[in-house]
Amino acid sequence: MAYNVGVMGAAGFAGVELVRLLVQHPDFNLVAVTSDADAGKAIADTYPAFTGMGLPAFTGHDDPALFDCDLVFLAVPHTVALKYAPLLMNAGVTVIDLSADYRLKDPDVYEKWYNTPHTSTDILAEAAFGLPELTGDELAEAAAKFAAGKPALVACAGCYPTATSLAAYPAIKAGLSAGLVVADAISGVTGAGKKATARTHYCFADENVEAYGIASHRHTPEIEQILGIQGQGRLVFTPHLAPLKRGILSTVTFSVPEGVSISAEALQELYEGFYADSPLVTVLPAGTSPKTSSVTGTVKAQVSATLAANGRAIVCLGAIDNLCKGAAGQAVQCANIVCGFDQAHGLPAVALPV
Amino acid sequence: MAYNVGVMGAAGFAGVELVRLLVQHPDFNLVAVTSDADAGKAIADTYPAFTGMGLPAFTGHDDPALFDCDLVFLAVPHTVALKYAPLLMNAGVTVIDLSADYRLKDPDVYEKWYNTPHTSTDILAEAAFGLPELTGDELAEAAAKFAAGKPALVACAGCYPTATSLAAYPAIKAGLSAGLVVADAISGVTGAGKKATARTHYCFADENVEAYGIASHRHTPEIEQILGIQGQGRLVFTPHLAPLKRGILSTVTFSVPEGVSISAEALQELYEGFYADSPLVTVLPAGTSPKTSSVTGTVKAQVSATLAANGRAIVCLGAIDNLCKGAAGQAVQCANIVCGFDQAHGLPAVALPV
Amino acid sequence: MAYNVGVMGAAGFAGVELVRLLVQHPDFNLVAVTSDADAGKAIADTYPAFTGMGLPAFTGHDDPALFDCDLVFLAVPHTVALKYAPLLMNAGVTVIDLSADYRLKDPDVYEKWYNTPHTSTDILAEAAFGLPELTGDELAEAAAKFAAGKPALVACAGCYPTATSLAAYPAIKAGLSAGLVVADAISGVTGAGKKATARTHYCFADENVEAYGIASHRHTPEIEQILGIQGQGRLVFTPHLAPLKRGILSTVTFSVPEGVSISAEALQELYEGFYADSPLVTVLPAGTSPKTSSVTGTVKAQVSATLAANGRAIVCLGAIDNLCKGAAGQAVQCANIVCGFDQAHGLPAVALPV
Amino acid sequence: MAYNVGVMGAAGFAGVELVRLLVQHPDFNLVAVTSDADAGKAIADTYPAFTGMGLPAFTGHDDPALFDCDLVFLAVPHTVALKYAPLLMNAGVTVIDLSADYRLKDPDVYEKWYNTPHTSTDILAEAAFGLPELTGDELAEAAAKFAAGKPALVACAGCYPTATSLAAYPAIKAGLSAGLVVADAISGVTGAGKKATARTHYCFADENVEAYGIASHRHTPEIEQILGIQGQGRLVFTPHLAPLKRGILSTVTFSVPEGVSISAEALQELYEGFYADSPLVTVLPAGTSPKTSSVTGTVKAQVSATLAANGRAIVCLGAIDNLCKGAAGQAVQCANIVCGFDQAHGLPAVALPV
Repeated sequence: MAYNVGVMGAAGFAGVELVRLLVQHPDFNLVAVTSDADAGKAIADTYPAFTGMGLPAFTGHDDPALFDCDLVFLAVPHTVALKYAPLLMNAGVTVIDLSADYRLKDPDVYEKWYNTPHTSTDILAEAAFGLPELTGDELAEAAAKFAAGKPALVACAGCYPTATSLAAYPAIKAGLSAGLVVADAISGVTGAGKKATARTHYCFADENVEAYGIASHRHTPEIEQILGIQGQGRLVFTPHLAPLKRGILSTVTFSVPEGVSISAEALQELYEGFYADSPLVTVLPAGTSPKTSSVTGTVKAQVSATLAANGRAIVCLGAIDNLCKGAAGQAVQCANIVCGFDQAHGLPAVALPV
Repeated sequence: MAYNVGVMGAAGFAGVELVRLLVQHPDFNLVAVTSDADAGKAIADTYPAFTGMGLPAFTGHDDPALFDCDLVFLAVPHTVALKYAPLLMNAGVTVIDLSADYRLKDPDVYEKWYNTPHTSTDILAEAAFGLPELTGDELAEAAAKFAAGKPALVACAGCYPTATSLAAYPAIKAGLSAGLVVADAISGVTGAGKKATARTHYCFADENVEAYGIASHRHTPEIEQILGIQGQGRLVFTPHLAPLKRGILSTVTFSVPEGVSISAEALQELYEGFYADSPLVTVLPAGTSPKTSSVTGTVKAQVSATLAANGRAIVCLGAIDNLCKGAAGQAVQCANIVCGFDQAHGLPAVALPV
Repeated sequence: MAYNVGVMGAAGFAGVELVRLLVQHPDFNLVAVTSDADAGKAIADTYPAFTGMGLPAFTGHDDPALFDCDLVFLAVPHTVALKYAPLLMNAGVTVIDLSADYRLKDPDVYEKWYNTPHTSTDILAEAAFGLPELTGDELAEAAAKFAAGKPALVACAGCYPTATSLAAYPAIKAGLSAGLVVADAISGVTGAGKKATARTHYCFADENVEAYGIASHRHTPEIEQILGIQGQGRLVFTPHLAPLKRGILSTVTFSVPEGVSISAEALQELYEGFYADSPLVTVLPAGTSPKTSSVTGTVKAQVSATLAANGRAIVCLGAIDNLCKGAAGQAVQCANIVCGFDQAHGLPAVALPV
Repeated sequence: MAYNVGVMGAAGFAGVELVRLLVQHPDFNLVAVTSDADAGKAIADTYPAFTGMGLPAFTGHDDPALFDCDLVFLAVPHTVALKYAPLLMNAGVTVIDLSADYRLKDPDVYEKWYNTPHTSTDILAEAAFGLPELTGDELAEAAAKFAAGKPALVACAGCYPTATSLAAYPAIKAGLSAGLVVADAISGVTGAGKKATARTHYCFADENVEAYGIASHRHTPEIEQILGIQGQGRLVFTPHLAPLKRGILSTVTFSVPEGVSISAEALQELYEGFYADSPLVTVLPAGTSPKTSSVTGTVKAQVSATLAANGRAIVCLGAIDNLCKGAAGQAVQCANIVCGFDQAHGLPAVALPV
């Protein structure tokens, strides 16, 4: 069975990645791609990879075709989803939201970090968090609503939270952490978005590595929420920018609690068991490390966990494509689940090997 | 209908790109991947993008499974195909050859440029040249053989010849060139192959552009043959290396013959007409230029032709992915044609937009 | 003896490269750096390599300190030099102009290609063209004026003209070319300037090669003038952009005239002889090729010339750093000559080896 | 006063960077460059940036000219310095050692991490550790020996230890750390050395980020020693590789001890005070972050320290050029000090601004 879908905010990097995935998906028909800034322009004018493919031009966010869709993906800045999600759901449309607006369960935390009131708390209370390997139950509820003909909303996890949580969740959930959780994550430049700035200028980004948003990045409370350590002041999250287009590698380090000990083998088994039913997450064998290039363009993640400091600490690693598993691909994965398809249905199976 | 296929030389860059394409192809079953150097190793050990996909390990080139295939792709160095193609065809296997061994119609030219005798001239005389947009008739003959249960051999065009010929052929065929044909082509580093050398070392290749093989590159006679200017001493082909992984851009410049003139509009129409039935070649509108990034990972080509020197010269441009349209993807495109499928069947539809 | 110098337009890429060179030059005191857009800002705010060096902040172009300088470098867009050069020279200041305003000897050619009237033809008639290896006589005249206490103007060659002309001039001057002169040049992204645009965005520039400005780039008449082939319609100049920060490689190909022949050895000797007194140009031995990485950050050029098409064509190569030898470094080299210093005085001696 | 110097191991990346710095140094005369593997080859054959500079060819490590030098730099693998340092010092030559052989004060720690006996413990006991901003006293002793005509040995700090220690030392020394010290460092590919391997192949390194050597990198005990936390099991050091040539950014995170508190202003003042007399270290103002591109090719470091986790943690950042401040540049800085020059004497003053 095929569904009609639309993408609001299709001209940004996450939006256009949605377009790439949806035009190749056998059971989603892409019927509307909107961009208030680029309305009227052809997609291929900005993204020439689509030249000659006969795609529809961008329309404005008020395109009525969106309201006739079965699902709409929102790839818009925060607060814009707060405006459109209620309108779409009132029209019976299920929303797959890539913005930050419905991710944080506590609206006060949202207001503190995003410095704007949360104006859609009813939907927030019902929203499913979209990180399928960790929130399967919430997505199952969304799927049940959709199957019953009711609109659902999935708030897809952010890019850094996805890489960081897939890496650290199994160990933290198992009680293997105490004290600080140090997450140093390295992102490609697509993470800085489509806007041409000094920061995204080739000549400043190339041959450079730097950290940014130290102690202040908005993904901090989202990671805390997923890991179940919110309000504890334990997470120190430092994002970094490196000269590549796509990819996030998150390195998460923490102490093993006093009185607890675990062997390398048991840690490996813990991770392999945890992800045994998650076909898109690969737990790497001991001695090998996740590489972002191994998952570029896919919805896959690679993770590993290694003992350090004579067994008194754990180093967890997670690699994803920030635009795909960290945004658009995960959104389609969630949409697959909501619609009752296999979670990997119609998604790219493998990265370029070289 | 599905066919069993094998890849000989699967551990090299063209070979592993074949693996990527074939594992995602709905009607080719990949049953053997061989590498004499890496026999026994898992593909994922060298190319971790395949981690967790359960692919067969490399076997040696003498793997008998190859001889039970319907088609075998040869991604081996020159002279190795001379050895294996006859054996495979004797066993009834159709061969899609990515090496240079059966490309040059005249064995004397082969012997001159490759400095080794051609030991398989019977097969050479029957071989189809694999550049579907330009050699459709030869491929149709190969398809007829295959349909009749007889083995065929397709000698797929090289990477530089593909980009250069798709760019220049329509104009040269139309009699719009006189004197030198200057082809300056820029390749990504995958073109230098998998071997780790000073030249492919990141620290020497990054932030550097250089030419190589000036007046001596082996693709010279192949380009001359395709363009129909062999033996004329008109082609000056200069390949360049630039710091990117994949992509070839070929810039071909020549004089318009004395007494001939063409308008920009007529030139554009010539190209659009020439490729009207070639869905994988996009003729760009005047004022836009082919970009290698627009075709990365696909079997697509972008071409353009522009008048220069006050209408007395033409600048043709062609962009492809050297490993995909320039090697593995074109091989699968040829295999599709030989097997009676649509030429783009099962191949990636679009590059990463960013 | 030391001189006071200023840089007008110091916030752009060529301007800031001048700052880099001048702060390390033992005999030029940098007393003013101007930028109308960034007046009041510290240089290190935009270019953090200068952090902690105590440089003066940007002032506006009307900074009176410029008029007290011995020399002022103009790193401004075309037409802006037309405005300021006369004012500065009236004040007795010698001008080293990096803009295009005084490069073309024929003001009609300027007006045609730059689409604006030339308003300073008196100075143009007296300007020295700044490409020291080819225009030593003009620079000697400028030096004589300066020594006599009179202001001079040097119009420094553009980046593409420098690389292209150093490569091709010896052969063309020696009568070794007929018909089209095909110059395909590849530039790093600094050539596209400091402005953040879709084109300079890391995510569009990285992993991409493309041509631009086909048959229309403004460096065309400048190259024709230097090579002495203006008005002949022989030059086809095609610039390309590749994913590196700095560097231009220009590949120039042309036919040897009917009735003329030259051996590879004689061609090599021609080039070595031509540049025997040019310490900053290295003629590479046969079989090796210029690399842009070998000259990054320096005022050096590497050139080579190779016979092709069975001796009926010549392929010339030239590699420079577009910002240094192609702009700021060549300007300081010219200033050295004007001031009576050794041409390489105070300039970096060697690129990073890796 | 000028000194004769030699470089043993000049064909590797650190060695050739020494050559670059020494040929431009006004008071060191480079009289011998040795390489057992490349003896007899010209430097420019491997590193064409030196083409045309008339440098001596590589000789073997047994070149007697080394023994007539005032100073010799050892850029050799570990254990090779153990062999040559005693021979050179016996001949009265002062040694600036870039290998790991004399860095670890405790020979047992050396033997444990390098899996080979320390055979030169007498010299080890007298060696100065070369990280001038932190070990000025040891270098002063070495300078006193040199001034007295006695040979000294300086064991220069490694690349990761330099970046990590400059970032974290002021805070840790001030008692501001408790529990784990998490150092996540990102290096450019020059850090992987000159050897062409799958890992340094452009096509595997480009567009990829990965960690390596988790819990096992040999720089771990060296960092512990510098920070004064050896034997405590507190350091978790994870190196990462990113696609750039040069640069290390080290991000060091730790808890502030219970009962201790510090304001952001006091932390900033602590760092600024600590480095007040270190002209080559820049403490960045709050809100800005070290960039590796700002120090490429120089002996400079940029550091910052930021409060996180509501003031209960500190994030320290340090950026250097791994080959320059992290290896060859620091070695020349140490040699300057030993010889009584200003520490920055003859060294590059500023990175390329773009």
